[in-house]
Amino acid sequence: MHIDILTLFPEMIEGVFNTSILKKAREKEKFSYNLVNFRDYTENKHKKVDDYPYGGGAGMVLTPQPVFDAVEAVTNETKTKPRVILMCPQGEKYTQKKAEEFAQEEHLVFICGHYEGYDERIREHLVTDEISIGDYVLTGGELGAMVVVDSVVRLLPDVLGNEESAPQDSFSTGLLEHPHYTRPAEFRGMKVPDTLLSGDHAKIEEWRKRESLKRTYERRKELLESHSLSDEEIKILEELRKRKDKNL
Amino acid sequence: MHIDILTLFPEMIEGVFNTSILKKAREKEKFSYNLVNFRDYTENKHKKVDDYPYGGGAGMVLTPQPVFDAVEAVTNETKTKPRVILMCPQGEKYTQKKAEEFAQEEHLVFICGHYEGYDERIREHLVTDEISIGDYVLTGGELGAMVVVDSVVRLLPDVLGNEESAPQDSFSTGLLEHPHYTRPAEFRGMKVPDTLLSGDHAKIEEWRKRESLKRTYERRKELLESHSLSDEEIKILEELRKRKDKNL
Repeated sequence: MHIDILTLFPEMIEGVFNTSILKKAREKEKFSYNLVNFRDYTENKHKKVDDYPYGGGAGMVLTPQPVFDAVEAVTNETKTKPRVILMCPQGEKYTQKKAEEFAQEEHLVFICGHYEGYDERIREHLVTDEISIGDYVLTGGELGAMVVVDSVVRLLPDVLGNEESAPQDSFSTGLLEHPHYTRPAEFRGMKVPDTLLSGDHAKIEEWRKRESLKRTYERRKELLESHSLSDEEIKILEELRKRKDKNL
Repeated sequence: MHIDILTLFPEMIEGVFNTSILKKAREKEKFSYNLVNFRDYTENKHKKVDDYPYGGGAGMVLTPQPVFDAVEAVTNETKTKPRVILMCPQGEKYTQKKAEEFAQEEHLVFICGHYEGYDERIREHLVTDEISIGDYVLTGGELGAMVVVDSVVRLLPDVLGNEESAPQDSFSTGLLEHPHYTRPAEFRGMKVPDTLLSGDHAKIEEWRKRESLKRTYERRKELLESHSLSDEEIKILEELRKRKDKNL
């Protein structure tokens, strides 16, 4: 996979891409990237990338020319059609499902604005996907693009080792994770639950299933609706509901 | 505001904090930060911060001792009670409202795990908030912490200038933004809507309101439910619905 990121602040991104899994994935040649400062593509002599909005109002708007030209420069030698992704608060909400979809692509291009708005012609005629990582306002699209890249690259084949793949993969089972404990069995008076120390694997599995359901029920009830529950899980949930009704 | 970030990968964060608004905010002394590698707080001679999970299973779990000690080291001289924020997929969904809440605090401490799970005693006895930036799996908590810091710091008084504050603030009005256009009026045959070029400010305002409602209706209907609509807005929405019914 190749990733191009169009940004006015390439220095924001290097540190993240040169660390941990992204660094390893690059070294293993599972993905390559290119940071493109689209200011280099402006045709005006002041190297301005934004201008006042038509119709008035505060704030500046990214002008179409440098963005169109930069996207064309990075895509004109590609054989496959790349996804051109605009990071913006009005975009489709990013989810693990979208990460899995992007992980199938060969070439992703990200456009990151930085507190400016985007000229609508960029949205309408250049981008294939508008993506928002959540309902909060960020200064620019760079952090969003890094979030998407991190979540996508870790899904590419042979990127994650065993050690890295496991416990945080909450969204693959559809339920939140059960609690984890490690040594020491007692830390400052706080103890690990007896079940986990028992060596009884059936009991441990049952405890984990129950705690995972409990946490999902308490924190993210809506996830249960899209999860197909087994008979055993339904029974556990009914118990949890009864306990809650009795304020236990 | 002071921010401490506990991480095993401080080098991921410097580039983001030394750019743009975060850099300016630090220079204006609106916030200060400290990156703490909690590996420096381990008491074991191999500087290990994680260990196998009790009860078996893949993946490693962050051991409580270095995290407890690092948090205590950065909070024991603080007079006010800091918020201790754990970045994790099981946490409360992060929103602009939470950003506004955090922006009132004097001291935030972030704990970022990195593909390990957290020992449950960290959650139960050390943290005040568990936060998730969205339903996708990331390699570590660092990107999430940076997202939260960016969204919080830009809300601090006198951090944003006029130029930076405006057009992306979608979530403050509760509706998605209307389209923006800037020069040229025609780019490769793509034209700016006539209304915006008309100079008629009442018409322009009406167009923007309508487009903002339209975009929200088409992309994020659920936002309309929590927005108190004016009579005019209700009228526009009814029109949009009728048009849709007729497939216009």
